[in-house]
Parts: sequence; C-alpha cells; structure tokens
Amino acid sequence: MATLSDIGVAAGINLLSAFVFLLAFAILRLQPFNDRVYFPKWYLKGLRSSPSRSGTFVKKFVNLDFRSYLRFLNWMPEALKMPELELIDHAGLDSAVYLRIYLIGLKIFVPITFLAWAVLVPVNYTNKTLELQLKNVTSSDIDKLSISNVPDGSDRFWTHIVMAYAFTFWTCYVLLKEYEKVANMRLQFLVSEKRRPDQFTVLVRNVPPDSDESVSETVEHFFLVNHPDTYLTHQVVCNANKLAKLVKKRKSKQNWLDYYQLKYSRNNAKRPIMKTGFLGLWGKKVDAIDHHITEIEKLSDEIAEERERVLKDPKSIMPAAFVSFKSRWGAAVCAQTQQSRNPTLWLTDWAPEPRDVYWQNLSIPYVSIAVRRLIMAVAFFFLTFFFIIPIASVQALATIEGLEKAAPFLKALIEIPFIKSVIQGFLPGIVLKLFLIFLPTILMIMSKFEGFTSISSLERRSATRYYLFNLVNVFLGSVIAGSALDQLNTFLKQSANEYVLLPFSSVYVCYAVPMRATFFITYIMVDGWAGIAAEILMLKPLIIYHLKNTFLVKTEKDREEAMNPGSLSFNVGEPRIQLYFLLGMVYATVTPVLLPFIVVFFGLAYVVFRHQIINVYNQEYESAAAFWPDVHGRIIIALVVSHVALIGLLSTKHLAQAAPLLITLAVLTIWFYRFCKARYEPAFVRYPLQEAVMKDTLERARDSNFNLKPYLQNAYIHPVFKEEDDDEEEEVVKLENESVLVPTKRQSRRNTPVPSKMSGASSQSLPEAVPEHSVP
Amino acid sequence: MATLSDIGVAAGINLLSAFVFLLAFAILRLQPFNDRVYFPKWYLKGLRSSPSRSGTFVKKFVNLDFRSYLRFLNWMPEALKMPELELIDHAGLDSAVYLRIYLIGLKIFVPITFLAWAVLVPVNYTNKTLELQLKNVTSSDIDKLSISNVPDGSDRFWTHIVMAYAFTFWTCYVLLKEYEKVANMRLQFLVSEKRRPDQFTVLVRNVPPDSDESVSETVEHFFLVNHPDTYLTHQVVCNANKLAKLVKKRKSKQNWLDYYQLKYSRNNAKRPIMKTGFLGLWGKKVDAIDHHITEIEKLSDEIAEERERVLKDPKSIMPAAFVSFKSRWGAAVCAQTQQSRNPTLWLTDWAPEPRDVYWQNLSIPYVSIAVRRLIMAVAFFFLTFFFIIPIASVQALATIEGLEKAAPFLKALIEIPFIKSVIQGFLPGIVLKLFLIFLPTILMIMSKFEGFTSISSLERRSATRYYLFNLVNVFLGSVIAGSALDQLNTFLKQSANEYVLLPFSSVYVCYAVPMRATFFITYIMVDGWAGIAAEILMLKPLIIYHLKNTFLVKTEKDREEAMNPGSLSFNVGEPRIQLYFLLGMVYATVTPVLLPFIVVFFGLAYVVFRHQIINVYNQEYESAAAFWPDVHGRIIIALVVSHVALIGLLSTKHLAQAAPLLITLAVLTIWFYRFCKARYEPAFVRYPLQEAVMKDTLERARDSNFNLKPYLQNAYIHPVFKEEDDDEEEEVVKLENESVLVPTKRQSRRNTPVPSKMSGASSQSLPEAVPEHSVP
Repeated sequence: MATLSDIGVAAGINLLSAFVFLLAFAILRLQPFNDRVYFPKWYLKGLRSSPSRSGTFVKKFVNLDFRSYLRFLNWMPEALKMPELELIDHAGLDSAVYLRIYLIGLKIFVPITFLAWAVLVPVNYTNKTLELQLKNVTSSDIDKLSISNVPDGSDRFWTHIVMAYAFTFWTCYVLLKEYEKVANMRLQFLVSEKRRPDQFTVLVRNVPPDSDESVSETVEHFFLVNHPDTYLTHQVVCNANKLAKLVKKRKSKQNWLDYYQLKYSRNNAKRPIMKTGFLGLWGKKVDAIDHHITEIEKLSDEIAEERERVLKDPKSIMPAAFVSFKSRWGAAVCAQTQQSRNPTLWLTDWAPEPRDVYWQNLSIPYVSIAVRRLIMAVAFFFLTFFFIIPIASVQALATIEGLEKAAPFLKALIEIPFIKSVIQGFLPGIVLKLFLIFLPTILMIMSKFEGFTSISSLERRSATRYYLFNLVNVFLGSVIAGSALDQLNTFLKQSANEYVLLPFSSVYVCYAVPMRATFFITYIMVDGWAGIAAEILMLKPLIIYHLKNTFLVKTEKDREEAMNPGSLSFNVGEPRIQLYFLLGMVYATVTPVLLPFIVVFFGLAYVVFRHQIINVYNQEYESAAAFWPDVHGRIIIALVVSHVALIGLLSTKHLAQAAPLLITLAVLTIWFYRFCKARYEPAFVRYPLQEAVMKDTLERARDSNFNLKPYLQNAYIHPVFKEEDDDEEEEVVKLENESVLVPTKRQSRRNTPVPSKMSGASSQSLPEAVPEHSVP
Repeated sequence: MATLSDIGVAAGINLLSAFVFLLAFAILRLQPFNDRVYFPKWYLKGLRSSPSRSGTFVKKFVNLDFRSYLRFLNWMPEALKMPELELIDHAGLDSAVYLRIYLIGLKIFVPITFLAWAVLVPVNYTNKTLELQLKNVTSSDIDKLSISNVPDGSDRFWTHIVMAYAFTFWTCYVLLKEYEKVANMRLQFLVSEKRRPDQFTVLVRNVPPDSDESVSETVEHFFLVNHPDTYLTHQVVCNANKLAKLVKKRKSKQNWLDYYQLKYSRNNAKRPIMKTGFLGLWGKKVDAIDHHITEIEKLSDEIAEERERVLKDPKSIMPAAFVSFKSRWGAAVCAQTQQSRNPTLWLTDWAPEPRDVYWQNLSIPYVSIAVRRLIMAVAFFFLTFFFIIPIASVQALATIEGLEKAAPFLKALIEIPFIKSVIQGFLPGIVLKLFLIFLPTILMIMSKFEGFTSISSLERRSATRYYLFNLVNVFLGSVIAGSALDQLNTFLKQSANEYVLLPFSSVYVCYAVPMRATFFITYIMVDGWAGIAAEILMLKPLIIYHLKNTFLVKTEKDREEAMNPGSLSFNVGEPRIQLYFLLGMVYATVTPVLLPFIVVFFGLAYVVFRHQIINVYNQEYESAAAFWPDVHGRIIIALVVSHVALIGLLSTKHLAQAAPLLITLAVLTIWFYRFCKARYEPAFVRYPLQEAVMKDTLERARDSNFNLKPYLQNAYIHPVFKEEDDDEEEEVVKLENESVLVPTKRQSRRNTPVPSKMSGASSQSLPEAVPEHSVP
C-alpha cells in the first residue's frame, strides 16, 4: 500500500503535469493562429473576427508581445468575471446550471472539509490501533488519520455518527437551496424566452393506422375533435434516415474532392492518384479528382431519387406528427393529458426544441421500444457486471507485487524507490481511466437504440447509465476487487457458492472501504487535476483544426467549419463529477484526508469549465436545465451509499448498535429526496397552465395580429430538407429570427402552385407540400 | 417437525370446523328471524321485505319446512349462478373485480398444481437424500416430496428451473389477460355510467391564502382565468369535524334513550336508573331517561352553536374546494395538468365520488402531509421490524419441545399422540392469526393520519402496508424465526454483529424455506379453510343484530339500521389473499405438496365471497376497480420473491451456476411488470380526453338543455349538513337520483332570499348559502 510519501510523489507529478498543461494553454492561446481554437464561441456569435490582416507575416501567427506572457494566468479571473445572468444570455441556461454543479461541490465540501479536519482527524489520529496490529496487515500513514485507527467498539465512533448527521444535513440544506434556485432560474428562463415553436407544439407518436385515411388526415380529425378550440396545424414525420445518410456521404466525398483539388492547385505537376479499396490502402489506382466527381454525381442522383421516394411513398410517412396549437395553454393541456383509451396510442409529449430533435429515432415504431428497452437493460447489466473482470485483473497487475510476480525480470527496475512510487501512485489510476474512455460512446449508442426522441434525453439517459456503471465498477469494483487483489486467486479457488456471496456481504465491502482511500486519492489527482487541466488545452481540436486548415480550408466559411468547438456533453461530464461527490461523501467520515483533494478538483474544474463555456463550447440544444433532477438525485444516492458504508464499517468495528441511528439517517435522506421531488421536480417536467395563460395573454396584448400558422408551419422539418432548401429558405429563416414576418408575402408564396413532382399524398412533411390544416 | 399424520389430523380438524361452520350457516340462514342478517343486501335494494306476517307465531322465527334443510348446500350453486354483468349491476364493479382475484388464483394455481404434481413430485420423491442424512436434522415425510430430498449439485435441479420458467410464464400470461380484461371492464363501466357529479368535478387543495380575497373568490378568479371556457362553479370545503363529532355523540345518546324508553315501556313499574361515571360502573345514580333527555338537549344546543360558528368563522373555511366544470373534458384537463408554478399550490385531482370522500382529512393543510407521511413511514418500519420479536417468542413456545421446556408439568398431557398432533398442527397457525387480528385497524388509523382524502385510497394504502407487513413478518418472519426456534437462544448469545447479519444472509433464509412448508400448510388450513367458512356464518353481525333487535328496535326503519351488512374491506381482505399467492408461488417449485391446499382455499373463498357479495355486503363506495394495479403488482412481487428464494436454495444446494438463469427470469418478470404498468395502468389513473369528449357529445345530443349547475351545486356538501337538511333536501335528492331535474323549480328555490343568519362571507359551503359563481 502507498505511504504518505508515495502520495506526495503522485501529487507532485500530477501538479506538475497540470501546471504544464496550463502553461501550454496560456502560451498557445495567445498565438493569433490558434485564435479560432481557443475562442470559437465568439466567432460563432459574430463578435470576433480573424486576427487583423495588418502587421507582419509573423505577427499573424505568433504573438510577440512578451508582456502578455507575463499575465499568462489572466484567463482565470476573466473566466470568473462574467456575471451569471450575462452567462445565461451568452451560453444558455444549460451551461450556466451545469457550472452550478461544481459550485455545489464547493459549497458542500469546503465546510465539510474544515469540520472533518477540525474534529475527525484529531479523533482518529490520537489512537494507536494500527501500530499495535500485526505487521502483515498492510496499513499506511494515511490510514492513521482514518477511521481504521480507532479501536473496535470505542466510544469515539459516536463522533463519526454525529459528523455523518452534520454532513448529511448540511448537504441536504445546500441541495434544497440549489434545487429551489435552479427551478426558479428555469421558470424565469422560460418566462423571459421569446416565442419559440416548441412552446406551441406537441409531439404525437403512435398514431393508429386507419385504412381509410392517411396519417395526416387521421391526426387532423383526431385533434379537431378532441381539442376543438385550440388545434392549429400539424406536420407529419417522415422517415428520411436513408436520405440523411446519403447527404452525409456526399458531404464527406465533397471534402475529399476539396482536399485533392487543393493539393492539385498547389502542385500542378501531378494529378493526385488514389486507390479505390479499403481506406485507400489497396485496389485499382485512379485519378482522385475525377473519381470523386463521378462519385458525387452518382450520389446526387441517388439523393434526388430517394427524395422523390420519401415524398411519394406512403410507407415513409411515420405514424407520428408534430401538432401545433393556437396557444401555449392548448399545447400544455395536450402534452399533459392522456388522449385515447388505449394508453399506447396517441402518445403526446412536449416537442423538443427543433435542434434538439433526434430525427433518426422518430421513425421507430413505439411497439418495439418496450422490447428495445428490455434488451438494453440486459445488455447494460452484463456490461456492468462483466466489465469488472478485466479491471480486476489489470489492477492486480498494476501493483508492485503483481508486477513482480507477472514480470520478474522487471524486479530490479521496479525496486528503484522513485519508480516504485510512480507505479504505486500513478499507474492504478491511469489503468482505470483508459478503460473508461470508450464507455460513453457505447452507452450513447445504447441510448440511441432505445429510441429516445431528443438529444437531451439521450444524453440524460446515457449519463444515468454511466453513473451506475461508475458506481458499480469504479467505486464498488475498486473497493472489492482493488483491495481484494491478493485474495483474487483465493476467491477463484473457493467454491462457486461462497464466491458469489462473498463480494455481496456488506461486511466485507465495508471493511475494505478505508483501505482504498489512497487509490482514490491518486485517481482524483490523475483524473480530476491533470485531466481537467488537459481539458482546457484542447489538444485534439487544436490538431484537427490545424490539419483541416492546412489541407481543406479555401474560404473563410470553410475555416469557420473547420473548428468544432464541441459542447459540454452532459453524458460524459456529469457522471464524472458525480463520482467525486460519491467519493467525497463516503470518505468524509471514513478518511477525511481525501477531502482536500476533492475540493481542489471542484475549484479547478469550476474555473476551467467556466472559461470553456464562455470562450469555446457551442451548445447544440437548450433544455432549460432539464437535467437538474438527475443531478440532485445522484448526490442523494451518494449520501445513502455513504450511510450504508458507515453502517457496515461500524458493524465490523463491533458497533452494530449504531446501525438504527444511521438507518434513520438514510431514511430521512430518502424522505428528503421524495420531498424535493414532489416540491421541485414538476417545474422540470410539466408546464403550469397559469404560466401558459400568462404568456398567451401578454403576447396577445403585445402582438395581437401575429399570424402563428405560417410561423409554426415549417418549424419541424427534417434538417435534410432544410439543408436542401437552404437557398430559398434563407430569406424566410432570417425573417423568422427577427420575428417580424410579413404575412402578405408568405401568403403569396403559399398560394403559388405546388410543383407537380411534390404533390403526392404522402408529401406532408415538406415545406412546399404541407397542406394547410386550417381549423374551420 | 410435523409428520404426514400430523398434517392429516390438522386437516381433519379444520375440515370438520369448516363443515360445522357451513352447516350452522345453512341452518341459520333458513330461519326467518335471521333473514335480515343473511340477506341484508336485498333489503337495502328494496327487493325483499320482512318475512310475511301471516302464519303462526313460531313460523315467523323458525323454519319448519324440513325439505329445505335437505338442500342446505344449495346456496353454493346459487351464488355461482348470477352472471358477471348482472353482478356488476347488482353490487358494483369493485365487488365483481374483487371476486376476480380469487378466480385468478384458481386460473394460476390449478394448472400449476397439476404440472407440479406430474413433474416435480416424482423428481423429488425418487431420491434418498433425506434418508441418508443424520437423524438430528429434523425432516418429515412431506420433506421427501420437496426439493430438500434432491441431493446437492444434482442435475435434477434443472427440472426445478425449467418449472420455475413455466410457472412464471403461465402466471404472467394469466395476469396480462386479466389486466386487459379488468381495464376494459373499468372503461366499459365508466362509459355506461350515468351522469355523476364526480365526472365534472375536481378537488383543488392548497389554495394559496390571499389577504384581499376570501378562499371562494380566489378559487373563482383563478379558474376563470386559467380555465376560462370550461369553469362552471365550485364549493369551498369547510372544517366541520367538530360538528360531525357532536352529531355522532347525539346519535349515540339518542340510542341509549331509546333503549331506556323501551325498557321502561316494557316494565312500567320502575323507571330505569343509571350511574353517570365511567361506563355506568360508578358515580351518582340518576334517572336514565331524564338524564339522557337533558344531555341530548345540551348537545343540540351545542350543535346549533357549532353550526353557526362553522358558517360564520372564516377560519373554518379550508383552503380547498370542489371545482366543477361545464364538461367532462374540462374536468379531465384540469385534473391532469399542473396549474401553478409552485407545484404544491393549486393541487388538482379527480374528486372522489361524494360518498367516497373522507371528509375529516380535507381539512388537513397540505404542508403537514409530507411530515405526516415521514412519521408514518418510520412508525411502520418499527411496527414491522419489532413485531417480529413477540411472534418469534410465542412461536418458540408453540412447539412441543418449547412447551415441554416452558411448562414441564404439562409433559404427560402433551405426550398423548392426539393432543400432540393438535398442538403441532393447529397451535402455530392460531397464534399467528391472533396476532394479526388487530393489525388492520392500526394500519387504517395510520393511513388516516397520513391525510388521504378518499376512503378508497385509505383502504388501498392500508392494504399496501398490510401486505408489506405480511411479507416481512408472516412470510419472512416465519421462515427465519420459525425454523430458527431452536437457534433463537444461540442467536442472542452470539455477538450483536453476527446477530444482525445472520437473518439477512440469503443463504440462511433460503435454507429454511422448505422446512417451513408444514407450518404454512397448517396456516392455510386454519386461516384459509376454517376462517373463510367462519366468514359466511357472520357470527358477530348475527349477535349484534339480535341484541339490537331486542333492546333498541321500535320501528321498521330501526330494524333496517340495526343490521350492518359490512363491506368487502379491501384493506383486510386483499393482503390476506396475496399471502396465498406468495406462498403458492414460493412453494410451487420447492414443496408442491402445499399447492392443493391453496387451490382449495381459492375455490372455497370464491364461492363464499360471491355469496356474500350477492346477499350481504353493501359497498360503501365505488372506485371502479381502481385497486387492480396494486393487486397485479403484488402478484409480481410474489413471483420475484419466489425467484430469489429459489436462487438462494439452489446455491445452498451447490448449484450457484443456475443463478444467472433465475436472475434473468426475475429481470424478465420485472420488465413484464413495467410493460403492463405502461400499457394498462393509465386506464386506472387518468381519464382519456377522447372518452370525455365522446360522453360530452353524446350527452349534449341526448339531453341538450339539462342545467348542470344546480345539479353540481350541492353535490359536495359535508354529510353533516346533508343530514341536517334531510327533510328539505329529500325531495331534491330524489329528483337527482332520477336524473330528471325540473330546472324551473330549482330556479325559483334559488331565487328565494337567503336567510340573513347565513349571509356571512364565509358561509360558502352550505346549500343555501353558496353564491352562484356564474361564468360571465
């Protein structure tokens, strides 16, 4: 086991690497040629343009002003300067609320850290249990500060129980205040929002088939009957997945064509050659430019054909529609009520924001969703519980003893004190980290398979799964398998029966909790310190941008597209933060030494992500902080896990009589969760009628002759069609953004004859072809 | 442990007592003077009147027609004869669906029993494990037919796993079909229902206080703004609990007065004397008639005063109201949507049927409900987990060995074979039964404290709690404590640590499951055979009726009130049935011998309760089978418990590798539950708009100039006021029942000036005083 000096070395290494990352960032960001990489948000907002073309050639690429290097940490106060309201305006509510998660971490753990160091550390340290124990029980200096050092059955444990109460109450208090604050922010945000199509629109799924009517007619008739006073119009969803794929393929071919053309224009001597086989590694050699031009032409033909098919074929019309209402009240009523006797038909739900819609999944028939969910639940179960085996075995290697056993020839090298420290302080964390890199992608694919219809819900689902995975594998897995390294072989030799039961015996798990504190400290340093510092450097986007810039970029618009600023990706980030909450809660009473590391993480991450949100990330959608109930719930889970761990620990310490007290605490915590759920969650799920009426009335007073119908007509069109119609739509979009539509103009456009090729009965979802479902 | 012959004796005793009960019932029911006890339902419906006054005096009391005694079991086919549709019409949907629970029991367990006896019993019996075991491990003949007889690690266990799959799939299939059927019955019932006030009414709670407006005005303004097109009228709820108490007290005094007057009229010689102290046991002697007359006068004054106070005092107006709408659509929308930004204000929910409203709880402010729920959750936890201690200790006594140890002087008596069999077969069951008699009342009080607003929800809540209690204490408690009788002392001497953990170790519990089969068989016979047969005898109502008839009854109306037919009391009955489902599921694979006992229970109970529902019970309310999701969910719980038990058992039998297969089965079962929940539960919770529109349209077409407002005006008035106004209201009630209201008449009534004493601002909830909140 690692000693205090091992931890010191690891802390040194990680602090150093964090410092190197921050320094590299500070230098790189000052170079003009990186400007688009480190400030893309401002470019996207149109508030910043490429560095001035004036000055010397060198100045365009390198910043020679040495004074600016002296203030290389200036970005930190700058990141903190922007007030929250401005931040919401600048980056959206999602981002602003996401930052509050880090802030909560600070609010919870700074007081807890002080209290724990003031009370628990002295209580633990002034015992001699560990010194008295036999030598073969491994313990480190850190364990002396932990609960392990208190003798069995000692009255001192009551301190830990009182502290558990204090920590829990403080956490719940902070959580309550934050939930209230975020709920208010969300409602405020929704109130102050401008008119948006999703406020008036409901997504209807599972429209029952009707032999006499088309889907569009069925929808219209149903809503004219059941929402006679409020129904306005609707748009049927059509399955354009294949079309979207083709368009995407053409775009990629176009990119390659651009690349070869640029290459050719730079070196006119030789026309570029390529191979047609897999990844261009083998196959026939052809002229790359000609090849791509023919390919693109072929694809264009296919696209035109597919487009025709989607419009004409009734099979491509899905039994789903975006139904729009005359008022927000109407939409709120429809979204919150059950429409039909059969609850799996006519499912209504708030329509996501147009850019939040995940179009591929709208075409999944609802019937199969129950089966898909089951399959994914089983798959996730196996993923979670069998992933533990490789982790356990690799971690068994990643200790000195394991390495020496596995590779005896390395023994001399490993025994060098410094390298030993590195291995012990550094390796276990990095092994785990590598394992986890590919997980979010897998989980996202699983969520997509389940058929959620908006990107935000996909991300929330993935985040939930990722969190559960972390809880089982990173936390429990590390506690069980990690501390059981030496016993792993013993396990496997025991009877299957005992093997199955042993890890689930709470005593065993809880006994191991304090032992793993050092492992988690190194994990925090690798992932939470160096990892966060690496985030701000954005090495991957930096390299990709410069590659694209060199090989593809021709126009200023290309350059804008070359930089992908990325977004917060809730599905990866949030479960990562939650792991720190979990560790902090569990170790607050057990090994308070761990707490300062967590506080440093939250502080650093807050500054870094605030900077990133202000300057880099471009949020794909706005869900108005719909994720907050999840965040809240997971911190509660962390609390309850900490209570369970403490119960188990104390019972191994012959203090089982404390269990009722801690069970009471856990029950109180769960009750608190249910209270908060009843009190605040509706603000994130439902839209109160009072608010709807208020906004409707205000709007009617302010803008009484606004024609809602043309505004909503084309709001929910598959982006493929939107892209295709970009040129002709541009003007309209511009008008929409300014929300000053000229009705007469639209009227005249709408009245122009529909092109004959689009007049099929099934062409409902296209801008030109949507029939006017006007209410009589 | 009990042997086969013990079981035989117990079966004999119970069959005999069941037979005696049935015989007594058959004889008693034929006596004319018991007619009102055994056929009260028909009296209440007005379809039967007191036996003819003609004939001899004896004939009025005793049935002398001997032929009728020969056909004494005739009630059974009679009970089964009535078709279900007629039954729904006769006794309501709740009762008809309640009977289906027994039917489900038969549908599930008859095929399972055949399959288990055909496959599992031979597989178990053809082993010799138990014969080979040491003598000190107690085992009986029954155990030879159970899974205990299969040797450890045998391949024969795969039969049990396959059977577990077969049983689970069959059960789920039956459950699915039933859920579908019941959901359809419910919807059909709601569709065919006549106009009822609760279809148009929503209960609004937590109206926020307003310093400028009364509650009534606030409610009116809020709904005029937020449901402008559908709002019709409302009735504010007022706190008349004290008034109701006084009225109840007066009624009881009146009963005593009647009793004494009757006594005096029979024996004119001496005026009855009573003592004023506690229960009439001590205190001053007074003339009973005079005393009661003055008491009643005093109470009448108090009632008048309290009535005045309730009407005038704004503090007695609660922040709750029954809001009525112009159409079912309007009510459905309001009940299903969130009204206000703060989700704890303006809570809307379907109004219960007027007779289902639990008026006492309407006056509980919503704020305190969260706290009340928490308190009750904690109280229930302690009730459940500390109740186990007396049960365990009494059961330890209730064995031969325990008795001999506790009372050595009884040894000679106990050793008589017959008495030994009685004690072993009979006593354990009856001890447990006695414990459970007072529980439902406690649980009902707990539910009332929690603040549910309808009797049906109170009963459902109590049933859930009762079921959990049964699961933990009767099932788990009997398995752990029962089979651990001998080890109980050992337990207590072990360290507290191990003691806490041992019962929760699944291996231990599962090992004990087959051992307890005999105990549960006796339990089924006592509770399920003799207990059900006793139900039909109705000893308690019989005695009470005859007592009342002798001492109180003066008029025919009194006689009608003297018989309390009772009702199904879902809160007691349903959890009892569920215990049989649980036992059946768990023992189906483990000890199939138990199954026939369960089948007999379901068959007998079905006939008995069908008879009771047709002839006796008078349902207090109609919830349209709202309890079905609970019933369904608990059978699923039984399935999952059976899987867990089998996993544990097989792992003690060195077949832990079967665990994944059974875990998969449990996951599938839970998925099935979620599927059913999504598919069918909404039918029990929400009211689809399509249905509402359909009924509205139909009604408008059929009865277009029906004036809804006067119909709804007085529907939700506290029963105390209704009783008081009985005389003047009677006419109106009659009109309402016939649903042919004469609008002009009501109009004229409404226009008569309101009496000045009731014209206070706070007198909104009284029939005479409700102002007309007409929609402009």
